[in-house]
Amino acid sequence: MTDTNTGGGLTDGLDELARELDREHVFHSWSAQANPSTLVIASGRGSRVWDHAGHEYLDFSSQLVNVNIGHQHPSVVQAIREQAELLTTIAPSTVNLARGEAAKRIVGHAPSGFRKVFFTNGGADANENAIRMARLHTGRDKVLSTYRSYHGNTGAAIVSTGDWRRIPNEFARGHVHFFGPYLYRSEFWATTPEQESERALQHLRRVIEAEGPSSIAAVLLETIPGTAGILMPPPGYLAGVRELCDRHGILLILDEVMAGFGRTGRWFAFDGSGVRPDLITFAKGVNSGYVPVGGVIISDPIAATFDDRVFPGGLTYSGHPLAMASIVAALDAMESEGIVENAREIGATVIGPALAELAERHAAIGEVRGEGVFWAIELVADPATREPLPAAAMGRLKSALVARGLLPFVQDNRIHVVPPCVVTADEVADAMAIYDDVLRTALEGEG
Amino acid sequence: MTDTNTGGGLTDGLDELARELDREHVFHSWSAQANPSTLVIASGRGSRVWDHAGHEYLDFSSQLVNVNIGHQHPSVVQAIREQAELLTTIAPSTVNLARGEAAKRIVGHAPSGFRKVFFTNGGADANENAIRMARLHTGRDKVLSTYRSYHGNTGAAIVSTGDWRRIPNEFARGHVHFFGPYLYRSEFWATTPEQESERALQHLRRVIEAEGPSSIAAVLLETIPGTAGILMPPPGYLAGVRELCDRHGILLILDEVMAGFGRTGRWFAFDGSGVRPDLITFAKGVNSGYVPVGGVIISDPIAATFDDRVFPGGLTYSGHPLAMASIVAALDAMESEGIVENAREIGATVIGPALAELAERHAAIGEVRGEGVFWAIELVADPATREPLPAAAMGRLKSALVARGLLPFVQDNRIHVVPPCVVTADEVADAMAIYDDVLRTALEGEG
Ligand SMILES: Cc1ncc(COP(=O)(O)O)c(C=O)c1O
Ligand SMILES: Cc1ncc(COP(=O)(O)O)c(C=O)c1O
Repeated sequence: MTDTNTGGGLTDGLDELARELDREHVFHSWSAQANPSTLVIASGRGSRVWDHAGHEYLDFSSQLVNVNIGHQHPSVVQAIREQAELLTTIAPSTVNLARGEAAKRIVGHAPSGFRKVFFTNGGADANENAIRMARLHTGRDKVLSTYRSYHGNTGAAIVSTGDWRRIPNEFARGHVHFFGPYLYRSEFWATTPEQESERALQHLRRVIEAEGPSSIAAVLLETIPGTAGILMPPPGYLAGVRELCDRHGILLILDEVMAGFGRTGRWFAFDGSGVRPDLITFAKGVNSGYVPVGGVIISDPIAATFDDRVFPGGLTYSGHPLAMASIVAALDAMESEGIVENAREIGATVIGPALAELAERHAAIGEVRGEGVFWAIELVADPATREPLPAAAMGRLKSALVARGLLPFVQDNRIHVVPPCVVTADEVADAMAIYDDVLRTALEGEG
Repeated sequence: MTDTNTGGGLTDGLDELARELDREHVFHSWSAQANPSTLVIASGRGSRVWDHAGHEYLDFSSQLVNVNIGHQHPSVVQAIREQAELLTTIAPSTVNLARGEAAKRIVGHAPSGFRKVFFTNGGADANENAIRMARLHTGRDKVLSTYRSYHGNTGAAIVSTGDWRRIPNEFARGHVHFFGPYLYRSEFWATTPEQESERALQHLRRVIEAEGPSSIAAVLLETIPGTAGILMPPPGYLAGVRELCDRHGILLILDEVMAGFGRTGRWFAFDGSGVRPDLITFAKGVNSGYVPVGGVIISDPIAATFDDRVFPGGLTYSGHPLAMASIVAALDAMESEGIVENAREIGATVIGPALAELAERHAAIGEVRGEGVFWAIELVADPATREPLPAAAMGRLKSALVARGLLPFVQDNRIHVVPPCVVTADEVADAMAIYDDVLRTALEGEG
């Protein structure tokens, strides 16, 4: 392992300096501050990252499932460098060529009837603005979303969110939650995917009726709930939701922040489902997070609502040139290098079969599910009751994986297997060997 | 005027292409979409920007009052290029050296007792997270803010906002608004700054009492309300607010998103006031918006609240390396090049006197106010009644200024004179000549 940044014995010192400054001055997301992370990352390439001393990690988290194109893709880095040289920032009210080029490419991947993009800084404000558009377009208040979901950390996005992170943050009104399909832990006493789909739709229909259909602006749905567990929608579910929405004049917002732009092996997770949303929110994969950005892709009737009526939303960095240049380069590279196809192919032929095999070897694996480079391993203390593996054991697993040089994405009782879309079969094989080994050793003496 | 980007006759074509793509595919902030802007900006340097054809504009808006260091400062551009080459993005849960270095510099400009920074993507989510911290630290719900304010476009930030943009967006609870001091249009029948200050404080005291002091988590205040009119707090006002907060265990959040990092000729607008807030929000000037970023500077007791308790907030791009590198370079350059001092000096010796002279020459100028590179010209139809100049006339002024090669910041009946902190005396003289001329010719036949 060689140091990729600076030479000699200074490098260990840089890692220590980074840790010291972090402890002193950086306040971290979603955590208690007294136990700071010590994992320094200084550089990366493809599916690998390094600290200053040159310790290497295989990134099977894609960080927060955003580095779809891999770390430090040369043409995206080059585009950022060139745009930085030309013009880093400009107000949203001006016209900028990089912005138009980015928007054109994004709508080029959307279904027909989507022609305009509103840019934001990330996924949370993408959802905020989609919700705003839906409310103003329909003249209605309520937004329905699922309990198993994450939509971001700002006012409306965090209250749309279903998981525990919503609870200390319930300061927005107009949000109602319902249960989505999840056969492995069915809320509907279902035993087959078809039954789960049918019953989940009946549940949603009853919630809509009971809330009053004419009070509901939108259903906000992650096409495939991501952080909540990579919950693949069963056959007919998305189409059924679309139908319920249509029946009542409710808009369908699909949150593709995590699932979109290649993660599933498709450009959008809903591609091929036959379902057309009214608004699509995105972030992460669109430029792999190289520059903070997100946005809303707007169907024509909703865009038209704001032709002569002021849209009451905006932000200083909407359509930021540096972000825009990175989108153009990322989407061009993903297209010309077949990166989405690689995600599909490797998911179907390598990751899927390898995880199935892993599940056979470990009783603690209750279920594996996913597609593309978007998979979950669900760990249980008892396969019969499906009782989740306790937090302490998950913590041990996580530490052991990092110690073995693999950056995992661990959430609740699950390991999400979410490498970059450019991951190779060899890298998958290496990762599987580590998962296998760690599941064997770190869980010894469990249950 | 020479073309700075590409050679020959292609350049006009690029401007036209940019306009065409914008019309087709870009949805814009705070506006009706049917009348898109046609102002293409392709490049910039210092206080000047250009379109592709080489048409030059003097930027007296700093875009959205964010480009404090001027356009395309070479050392900040260079830092972005270098960090892009090294590592563009990494998850907030890791340790990154650029992040620690940025946080260290930011707290270095804050008062003692502020040691930690939580990074966000912009000003709105900075305020969202400051409000979150205040609520959790105090265990109280309500946030008080002024009617003349702007705090951002997301859930809680837009409902904290006082201006018209709040009205179609009132989906957050726990927000109460009060009137701040603004002698020129006093809400308190005051006639002197001292009286305005005293009465504004009495009004706030009464609102706090009537709302129930023990229900109030924080007062959220722009140190100098910016978009609302660059409303300089009268003597004693900020100290009086601090005192009211202290009396009732209410936190004081100062929003320094627009006023901070040099705009006033000080690092923070509250510097020298003797007032110490509990939380400081920032964005814009911290890196001049070269990469989207914002954040909260946290006083020690509030940070300590989350030592052993999970902070329930976060975002994918918190502490984004590219943004962090741009902060380090921007703050270092501002310090070593005396950029904040330039803003102070030029405000006191050039802009202030020039605006006072302008006001004498034009009856339509009701008041000028400000400091540093943060000034407002308030235009009235009638100096006696102080009736605001109508929107149509403001529109004519704006168009005439742009036609004369000056990018103005026009808000309601005001022109905000807000060039970069690096603006030179010659550039101010050029701008003043344009303001003078346009006020003379574009308002002919007004009242
Ligand atoms: C589905 C989904 N929506 C929204 C978000 C929020 O995005 P951000 O963190 O950029 O605000 C996330 C982040 O994980 C997400 O997974
Ligand atoms: C005082 C103040 N706070 C917050 C914001 C919101 O910042 P952003 O647009 O980056 O969300 C602004 C933007 O103009 C502002 O002026």
